[in-house]
Amino acid sequence: MSKSFSLGEIAAFLNAELRGDPETRISGLNTLLNAGSGELAFLANEKYASQLAGSSAEAVILSAKHSGTSIDSDGASGYSGAMLLLDNPYLGYAQISQWFDPAPAPVAGIHPSAVIDPSAQIGANVAIGPHVVVEADAIIGADAILGAGSTIGARSQLGEGARISANVSIYHDISIGSRAIVHSGAVIGADGFGFAPTGDGSWQKIYQIGGVVIGDDVEIGACSTIDRGALGDTRIGNGVIIDNHVQIAHNVVIGDNTAMAAYSAVAGSATIGRNCIFAGDACVVGHVDICDNVQIMARSLVTKSITEPGSFSAVMPLMETREWRKNAVRISQLDSMARRLKALEKK
Amino acid sequence: MSKSFSLGEIAAFLNAELRGDPETRISGLNTLLNAGSGELAFLANEKYASQLAGSSAEAVILSAKHSGTSIDSDGASGYSGAMLLLDNPYLGYAQISQWFDPAPAPVAGIHPSAVIDPSAQIGANVAIGPHVVVEADAIIGADAILGAGSTIGARSQLGEGARISANVSIYHDISIGSRAIVHSGAVIGADGFGFAPTGDGSWQKIYQIGGVVIGDDVEIGACSTIDRGALGDTRIGNGVIIDNHVQIAHNVVIGDNTAMAAYSAVAGSATIGRNCIFAGDACVVGHVDICDNVQIMARSLVTKSITEPGSFSAVMPLMETREWRKNAVRISQLDSMARRLKALEKK
Amino acid sequence: MSKSFSLGEIAAFLNAELRGDPETRISGLNTLLNAGSGELAFLANEKYASQLAGSSAEAVILSAKHSGTSIDSDGASGYSGAMLLLDNPYLGYAQISQWFDPAPAPVAGIHPSAVIDPSAQIGANVAIGPHVVVEADAIIGADAILGAGSTIGARSQLGEGARISANVSIYHDISIGSRAIVHSGAVIGADGFGFAPTGDGSWQKIYQIGGVVIGDDVEIGACSTIDRGALGDTRIGNGVIIDNHVQIAHNVVIGDNTAMAAYSAVAGSATIGRNCIFAGDACVVGHVDICDNVQIMARSLVTKSITEPGSFSAVMPLMETREWRKNAVRISQLDSMARRLKALEKK
Repeated sequence: MSKSFSLGEIAAFLNAELRGDPETRISGLNTLLNAGSGELAFLANEKYASQLAGSSAEAVILSAKHSGTSIDSDGASGYSGAMLLLDNPYLGYAQISQWFDPAPAPVAGIHPSAVIDPSAQIGANVAIGPHVVVEADAIIGADAILGAGSTIGARSQLGEGARISANVSIYHDISIGSRAIVHSGAVIGADGFGFAPTGDGSWQKIYQIGGVVIGDDVEIGACSTIDRGALGDTRIGNGVIIDNHVQIAHNVVIGDNTAMAAYSAVAGSATIGRNCIFAGDACVVGHVDICDNVQIMARSLVTKSITEPGSFSAVMPLMETREWRKNAVRISQLDSMARRLKALEKK
Repeated sequence: MSKSFSLGEIAAFLNAELRGDPETRISGLNTLLNAGSGELAFLANEKYASQLAGSSAEAVILSAKHSGTSIDSDGASGYSGAMLLLDNPYLGYAQISQWFDPAPAPVAGIHPSAVIDPSAQIGANVAIGPHVVVEADAIIGADAILGAGSTIGARSQLGEGARISANVSIYHDISIGSRAIVHSGAVIGADGFGFAPTGDGSWQKIYQIGGVVIGDDVEIGACSTIDRGALGDTRIGNGVIIDNHVQIAHNVVIGDNTAMAAYSAVAGSATIGRNCIFAGDACVVGHVDICDNVQIMARSLVTKSITEPGSFSAVMPLMETREWRKNAVRISQLDSMARRLKALEKK
Repeated sequence: MSKSFSLGEIAAFLNAELRGDPETRISGLNTLLNAGSGELAFLANEKYASQLAGSSAEAVILSAKHSGTSIDSDGASGYSGAMLLLDNPYLGYAQISQWFDPAPAPVAGIHPSAVIDPSAQIGANVAIGPHVVVEADAIIGADAILGAGSTIGARSQLGEGARISANVSIYHDISIGSRAIVHSGAVIGADGFGFAPTGDGSWQKIYQIGGVVIGDDVEIGACSTIDRGALGDTRIGNGVIIDNHVQIAHNVVIGDNTAMAAYSAVAGSATIGRNCIFAGDACVVGHVDICDNVQIMARSLVTKSITEPGSFSAVMPLMETREWRKNAVRISQLDSMARRLKALEKK
């Protein structure tokens, strides 16, 4: 919390043009509205441009087109602080955000309460917290961090610099790439939901003998689940970002850089392309394919393959409940209405 | 399980009028239908009034309007047990329920397997279970209970009498008020889902440097997640009740006493008023505002701000699948149907 | 991974007709498309029949009707490997899958870091992992496996051969039958969501004094939650299979062999029959009854009781977002459209 950096250092890291004193100290990030002395803000969205003049930020990351107005304005109405000019101020803010992250620095070493199988390979400079369990033949990459109570199953691998939060469960035979971030409560490699009907109404479990392979630079949110494959692996590409409560079923394939917001889910054996964006609760049924560059709007269910990039929706619009009652009942009459309309047109 | 109390004690605690022997022992609570000897039932819903006559309950909490009928009826058809009269029998049942809670009383003290940073401040009379982790500078209020395997991050605070179940993950810099109840698998303070596009299709993580501030008397269900703020805090008011699998994204604000059933969710930076009720799976997109006293029906998605109290819905009605198939296809023809209808009207 | 079995052993176990050398070794299972030397595949779905001819599998489980073609065909285009003939090849694959499960065999015994209350009864041959907690008077059946960091509350019971994965939370007074499989992050017995309005806008918690009773041969997925009853128990029948992120609220009753895919949920006091199938995100409101043999399609919300077997749906169809925008706005005009259509018909 007491970290501080000079504007000069920040400008150099961001490769930004600095208008202001490079010796000025910056001790935090904040919004234009809330930033005060010693804090750095950013202007990334046109709709907040009017907040610039009144901002008390020590410095602001902004694009050239907003830099003139404030410099020109007088002290009463204009922004008079320092500026860092970038073509993409939002990206600049994102890039500098790690410098101000208050997350405690992990202490390298293995906590004495952790249970590490002697056959596991533990890389240099790892930080393994209390009550962690690492099973036989697991491989933990250098600089990895394992939060308290996390478990790494037999033969599983974590790439260099992976950050596993507290109480994460990783089953056996899972491979996770470098710099992965996995949040608490996430479960990777539980059994896919596979059962065969026996014929008498009961179910025969299909043991899930595949694994999970996750690329580099992936983030997985709290309480999200990625199931192991039935036969062969479930696969998550590089740079995929996954929010909380997401479900990836067995043998799903997710392409590089696809983003999935909370509760989005993909059922078994579906394949999702690269650079797709799933809004919250966007779900996909099993055994379909979605091509690259598809956006699925919030709460929409994809029930068949999508072969062309684009934006897709399936959301009931919100109404006051009394209006909804009147209209909803008509949905079950729609086919009849369509036929009657056609009949009238024929007359 | 062997707890018992006299009807007199119960009547005094509830401030109820007792009709019956104050020395009668009550050893459990049950429904009108299932209660037997030694058990206390309640009549709170008019539709169960007919069960009163046949109930074998030792005593019943009810309102004055139901007390006459049973007293007047004979032993064969009428309720002949003791009565506790209250204006709000359901509230009375709720208030007395804790007396019969079979949850084991926690043992005060710190289990030797817990790992408590020496800089943490631990209040009087806490009960810290096995394998708990409390990190540097955390503050645990008096009488708090920490279930097995829970983790409390650096500088986080728990108010007096907070009850944290097993395997809860609380990150660093989180503040939780007094008497909070947090169920297993909940995760508080994981990173909000914030990423900036880099321009080459990949994502730059935005480190989430805010925290979470939770008021007093809040309950948080199993596997629910409350993310830390990107800049500034995510805020949950006093008396908010949150069911299982709920998602509160970064920088959301939830007003006092709002209730959120399972899977309800609020996306980033939305603000929810006080005394709102979210039914199951009621969700809100990001950056909108919902005023006080709004009810959202089950599975409804709120896509814009709501400025007046009321009840809102967005649910597809259920049909037999074969009917649904015929009608659903018409939804994509609705705009055409509306235009054709208008054309016919003009003729 | 280095397990192997002879075709003769496999045929005997499956009670299949073997066409091929019983001494042939099988070291893995795979799909028709991907299976190679030493691997066993299966043909269960007519649409993959064309893959048979080109398959490099060492042996294939198939039905008699597919066995002729390949035997008759020549080496270049036909399948020339061994065959295991079964009426139900998919069930055969499911039954043999456990033989090839790479999950590490648990080591019988109690890890020294586990905390077992002296009053707990621990069956023969259990495997209790690191950091497990078993509270007072719990009963763990013979051959049960408790994964690292799991907690079993006071007086709870696990049947023989139950397999509890890492970081599972089981509260007090829970009963789970024999051969249960519970995946990581699952929470059984957290409080149901029960609160009474106090009248001043705040909520009075209703302590949940019932338990959970789960039958034999049940599987519960990762991060799924089954709440304890308010009064009386929540009940899950024998052979029920539950995927990830499923929510079973207080006092729900689920009949034998019902299957619930990811995110499916049942609200408080609803009863679900036997042999029902819930697709992903199929949800049921509280206090309704669903009879045996009902199928609920993906993302459908059941808002009233279902008294006849059948398939039910409530899903908005997917459209391109621009088409959706035009049509969705018409949904709130449906009642008006229906009235206007009727008026035109009268003319």
